[in-house]
Amino acid sequence: MKRRQFVRTAAISAAVAGVAACAKEPAASGAPSAAAGQTFRWKMVTTWPPNFPGLGSGANRLAEMLDKASGGRLKVKVYGGAELVPALEVFDAVAGGTAEMGHGAAYYWKGKAAAASIFTAIPFGLSATEMNAWLYSGGGLELWREVYEPFGLIPFPCGNTGVQMGGWFNREINSVADLKGLRMRIPGLGGEVLQRAGGAPVTLPGSEIFTALQTGSIDATEWIGPYNDLAFGLYKAAKYYYYPGWHEPGSTLECIVSKRAYDSLPPDLQEILRIACAAVNDTMLAEFNARSYEALDSLVNVHKVDLRPFPADVLRFLRDLSRQIVAETAAKDAQFAKVYASASKFEAGIARWTKISDEAYYGTRSL
Amino acid sequence: MKRRQFVRTAAISAAVAGVAACAKEPAASGAPSAAAGQTFRWKMVTTWPPNFPGLGSGANRLAEMLDKASGGRLKVKVYGGAELVPALEVFDAVAGGTAEMGHGAAYYWKGKAAAASIFTAIPFGLSATEMNAWLYSGGGLELWREVYEPFGLIPFPCGNTGVQMGGWFNREINSVADLKGLRMRIPGLGGEVLQRAGGAPVTLPGSEIFTALQTGSIDATEWIGPYNDLAFGLYKAAKYYYYPGWHEPGSTLECIVSKRAYDSLPPDLQEILRIACAAVNDTMLAEFNARSYEALDSLVNVHKVDLRPFPADVLRFLRDLSRQIVAETAAKDAQFAKVYASASKFEAGIARWTKISDEAYYGTRSL
Repeated sequence: MKRRQFVRTAAISAAVAGVAACAKEPAASGAPSAAAGQTFRWKMVTTWPPNFPGLGSGANRLAEMLDKASGGRLKVKVYGGAELVPALEVFDAVAGGTAEMGHGAAYYWKGKAAAASIFTAIPFGLSATEMNAWLYSGGGLELWREVYEPFGLIPFPCGNTGVQMGGWFNREINSVADLKGLRMRIPGLGGEVLQRAGGAPVTLPGSEIFTALQTGSIDATEWIGPYNDLAFGLYKAAKYYYYPGWHEPGSTLECIVSKRAYDSLPPDLQEILRIACAAVNDTMLAEFNARSYEALDSLVNVHKVDLRPFPADVLRFLRDLSRQIVAETAAKDAQFAKVYASASKFEAGIARWTKISDEAYYGTRSL
Repeated sequence: MKRRQFVRTAAISAAVAGVAACAKEPAASGAPSAAAGQTFRWKMVTTWPPNFPGLGSGANRLAEMLDKASGGRLKVKVYGGAELVPALEVFDAVAGGTAEMGHGAAYYWKGKAAAASIFTAIPFGLSATEMNAWLYSGGGLELWREVYEPFGLIPFPCGNTGVQMGGWFNREINSVADLKGLRMRIPGLGGEVLQRAGGAPVTLPGSEIFTALQTGSIDATEWIGPYNDLAFGLYKAAKYYYYPGWHEPGSTLECIVSKRAYDSLPPDLQEILRIACAAVNDTMLAEFNARSYEALDSLVNVHKVDLRPFPADVLRFLRDLSRQIVAETAAKDAQFAKVYASASKFEAGIARWTKISDEAYYGTRSL
């Protein structure tokens, strides 16, 4: 793939991620409040197309909050992917000082640190609600800081897509056998799982998905969820819309801040940054959920989409493969192993609670 | 009940609520940033016992955020229930100017406006995640402001307990018939539902629940969830711990601010208040979920609690009664009817999405 295409892929496939906020310490360090009168003009580079619904708009909202809450002392200009640096260079741009902060998703940086994936989403891992519990109150955010520390970056959870959709298919998935040879656009760990299941994962820029699906050069694609999928028109190119999005059960987005830039802020602006990220973490998931149901209704009722659950044996098979692949990654990478040990122990515990709280409650609706 | 008891009941049964945050406008009005140097010393009255885990500690965290983010220009002293005013007088105290802000739960003020209940939780209503979607992105918060406007108060969502537990029982609930004559401590709409089911709802101060349950003067009690229930020792006085908490499926907490006090703030402090509430909304639910699973493990493994689901026909029966009671309230109160129309329409829509997102995803764990 050419670099230009890669950049577009990055910018758009970035639109696959989730939650990240800030409502926990970095202990207030930095300059004394004598610096309180100073105005900081920062750049925020993002992995999203400018103003991309939910994700790019969340980054914009973060900048607006910082401006208002600081009384104009922290002015942040937001750049869409490729506007200042290529989407997949956001991490390097903030680490290197080209920009003071960035908004994206940690799993894009797994080449820097394999463990980063865990802070966005891993197949059959933590849901959005559970991820927040792990990050804020289960030690997850401390580990995230530890992973980013060598790069001079401070991460904050700053948004979540919630559970994504399984994707758009032009082939029925009735059994595990139907995954064999399936040409599907699905990046990351999800793609690795599909490959082990006998499928053929493909990486394609978002801009090429529609045509690839319509011409039959791919059989299926995942994207995000109803909110963004409807806008993308994918229902015109595929017959079946499968759920749930086992590969991204609640993708956390991140705000990353250069430690050097962060340390230059007076403590009040540091705290404003921290709480603004948590506020976006809260409101972005709300936006995704509200808009997703409206879009789902439109897909089903207006566009007559054939909405289907993946069969249980297919999900069980994918779940087992996912665990194998994650375990293999842990065997090769000590830091991944450490972070995964924390996340998976937490998951095993909170899953017992989720089962009798959210899951049991939702179950009462079908009675 | 004596006043003193009532106050204690209020303070403690208050510990039953949920989420409320702020990440949406009040449009920044108020003084010009010329006032930026001024220090505001505010009082926050709360409906919780001081430092009560999850709820009171959330109010404390809000005050700390406001102090830090404002660089000490917005200093808020937090009062537990009955420290400055009785717990159930928080609303009046803020409306009347005794305190500038308060932290509690909207359903305590249903005597002021019946519709207030809907912003905390109603039986078989919105979950925590769904409530956030309705409040921030479905018109709920605008309606909440409308309901509080005549009292000179501005509400912000500011925390959530998540799904509560069904309660502690010394009688097995195997069928609808077992609800007949059941003497259960359960306040509010949940109590009305139990009464219509043939039970005998009781209002008791938190401090009296344990003894009442142990001596058999009540057969059952609801409280909050594992996090607070474990600390309360209820497992020593009851045999069965039932789920899910159909009567409070995701209770939202609120921060209320006197409009006059809010308008006196410069726009930056107004924004700080708004985003700090949203940050607490995000982190409190995370805390409840993380601590609930740990407490649940302790209850089941250490204290050998008999954890049980309510039977399906019991839940179906309670659900139907809940809808009847809510519909009757709507028939008597136009404002309740208006707010409920919004919430219930939103619920019907988002339930379709929740079913194929969170619920379907959680279902993959049992495969």
